[in-house]
Amino acid sequence: MKDGENEHMTIQTHKAIPLPLTEARTLLPQQNLRVPGPSPVPPTVAEAQRGPMLNHRGPEFAAIVKRVTLRLQYFFQTASPVLTYPASGTGGLESAVVNVFSPGDHVVALIIGNFGARIAKIAETYGLRVTRIEFPWGQAAEPAMVEARLKELEEPYRAVMMTHNETSTGVTNDIQALASVVRRLSPEALVIVDAVSSLSSIPLEMDQWDLDVVVTGSQKGWMIPPGMTMIAASERAWEAHKDAKLPRFYFDWTSARKSLEKWQQPATPAVSLFYALDAALELMLQEGREAIFERHARAGEYVRSRAQQMKLKLLADPRYASNTVTALLIPEGIQVKSLLKTLREQDHIVLAGGQDQMKEKIFRIGHLGFFSHEELVQTMDALEKRLQQLARKAHP
Amino acid sequence: MKDGENEHMTIQTHKAIPLPLTEARTLLPQQNLRVPGPSPVPPTVAEAQRGPMLNHRGPEFAAIVKRVTLRLQYFFQTASPVLTYPASGTGGLESAVVNVFSPGDHVVALIIGNFGARIAKIAETYGLRVTRIEFPWGQAAEPAMVEARLKELEEPYRAVMMTHNETSTGVTNDIQALASVVRRLSPEALVIVDAVSSLSSIPLEMDQWDLDVVVTGSQKGWMIPPGMTMIAASERAWEAHKDAKLPRFYFDWTSARKSLEKWQQPATPAVSLFYALDAALELMLQEGREAIFERHARAGEYVRSRAQQMKLKLLADPRYASNTVTALLIPEGIQVKSLLKTLREQDHIVLAGGQDQMKEKIFRIGHLGFFSHEELVQTMDALEKRLQQLARKAHP
Repeated sequence: MKDGENEHMTIQTHKAIPLPLTEARTLLPQQNLRVPGPSPVPPTVAEAQRGPMLNHRGPEFAAIVKRVTLRLQYFFQTASPVLTYPASGTGGLESAVVNVFSPGDHVVALIIGNFGARIAKIAETYGLRVTRIEFPWGQAAEPAMVEARLKELEEPYRAVMMTHNETSTGVTNDIQALASVVRRLSPEALVIVDAVSSLSSIPLEMDQWDLDVVVTGSQKGWMIPPGMTMIAASERAWEAHKDAKLPRFYFDWTSARKSLEKWQQPATPAVSLFYALDAALELMLQEGREAIFERHARAGEYVRSRAQQMKLKLLADPRYASNTVTALLIPEGIQVKSLLKTLREQDHIVLAGGQDQMKEKIFRIGHLGFFSHEELVQTMDALEKRLQQLARKAHP
Repeated sequence: MKDGENEHMTIQTHKAIPLPLTEARTLLPQQNLRVPGPSPVPPTVAEAQRGPMLNHRGPEFAAIVKRVTLRLQYFFQTASPVLTYPASGTGGLESAVVNVFSPGDHVVALIIGNFGARIAKIAETYGLRVTRIEFPWGQAAEPAMVEARLKELEEPYRAVMMTHNETSTGVTNDIQALASVVRRLSPEALVIVDAVSSLSSIPLEMDQWDLDVVVTGSQKGWMIPPGMTMIAASERAWEAHKDAKLPRFYFDWTSARKSLEKWQQPATPAVSLFYALDAALELMLQEGREAIFERHARAGEYVRSRAQQMKLKLLADPRYASNTVTALLIPEGIQVKSLLKTLREQDHIVLAGGQDQMKEKIFRIGHLGFFSHEELVQTMDALEKRLQQLARKAHP
């Protein structure tokens, strides 16, 4: 549920069981998909999904789960097991909350945008007491300010939850610095990181930085379709899990870990997404972890420099601008909706609008996972042209 | 988590971040996959997954969600909206529990096998008080016995949870009769049905039979890979939802329904599985709902008649034998594990073993979703041959 959409919905049902639509499926459009997830899927990864189904308790699938898990550990940069669930990233965030806390626990949420607000809301839904440290949209959680605010807190806190890359604003927090602030002030507190739109694209060293829970989602830097979330927890988080009393069944880590010891999952895993992830990880290893980071850094720089040339304003504080998604203020007199519609219909380029308080104010360009430099050039060229056209319409 | 696996697991981590396995992906085996899910995927459905990613908030995806939803309603035989989540069937069952109940609510679970036990366990995990009405594995929940047991209950109950088709025993409950017993005794109680391994393969008329919550999973009769669960709730269940206090965020129905009014989902949907489901529903409409039921009925009859000729004993009471999965007792002197291994390695036929109390005692044959008569013939021929060979080894 998005912020500000809390009013109780009207429940309407059909009068009768609908007849199936006779309208047949149509071809999906070939687009330059530049939203911050779902991101495009490479041809060999798309192809891998076609693999025949198999027994998810059998030896062939166990070999795949083993290979995928060890490779995920390499990209999470952790010695801890990486659990996976058929679920979106939001499901992964929920699993982080319900597996390490008990009702009434006090936690701190660093909020720099929509997704930081989401995990705070999940925590409150499950009966935690949440202290929010909020920053204006476009800003990062400044480590010095976070330190000052944490020191002011009268009550101890069990965890600090933070977003690595805030998809709604195009801002990347300095997780290493933030984690080290938390560790210094409160050695036992858990550092819980939403890395949905960063992990594998932007450097994150789970063990080296002493992070406790890291959550990501399949449809971002991993170059596979949505539907799978991946989660790793530190020894400290597994200790907290032992005493965590929040109710959980589907997302229970104990049963997931127990199954993982046999390279299985407690419920039926998303087999075709595993095939895709297996193929994607192979491509990622061929490209190299550091090379992927560099490609994203170059993409971020290119998009920002082109935006600057067009006199577009970044929403993000430039020191923290994200290398996976760029949020730009819409020039006065132009409607976000018109810009996105024109680009989609005329140029087959799909950008994203803003969320919540930024709905009509920004548009966002995704540059994560599978993309070529040419696609970014095409995107920025078309953007330049359409903005000029729309500006002429607005001020003829 | 399975029954009897409650002891606390040992937490072991790697000593260091593992290096990625260099071992490359190998070709997946072409098998006659006869487990009761994941079931084989038709070529056009497998192909559909390759469709390009798109903006899950855009018009192209909305058209797909609309078409899929209306067609799901046709197969659920309901005028209520059908919600979907990226999750396994277990996630769907959890969503049923957390959306209609409050802590301490009293519910009745009719248990005829492993999956009936699972939903009871989910309910207990979330703090419900569960009265179990259990039947021996292989039996159905006899409506007359259920009626007598419900009448004995001193305390009112908010719901009766039941399994349509118990995958662990190959038994199909008479849901229509059971629902009518509940409705007669306790007009306000919710009838919650796990239809994971039945819906679309075995007749179920949600509205006509006055069922309140029906849950199914993608990897069974729907002929698509695992990773999506589909759920419909009656007006009565939506009313209960309004007052239901159990915590939920990812699986919250209010936000799912609100998004569905725009043909969207609250979190990112499993886009490629939607493509697959869209293609599968097209095939299913071409075949026809009743024709699909008849094909499954013929399959069940064929497998049972061949088993009888081989002097194999059905686990199921024959009056309630399932048309999607057949559970057979393993003949004395033969190990389930040896039989399954021989069939898999020699014949490329994959059957399933038993679960929990039936682990070493039965094996199961899946005949649901996408299969041909020839594959069933091949399965039963190979089974006959391998059982004879193994029997000769056991009694030379």
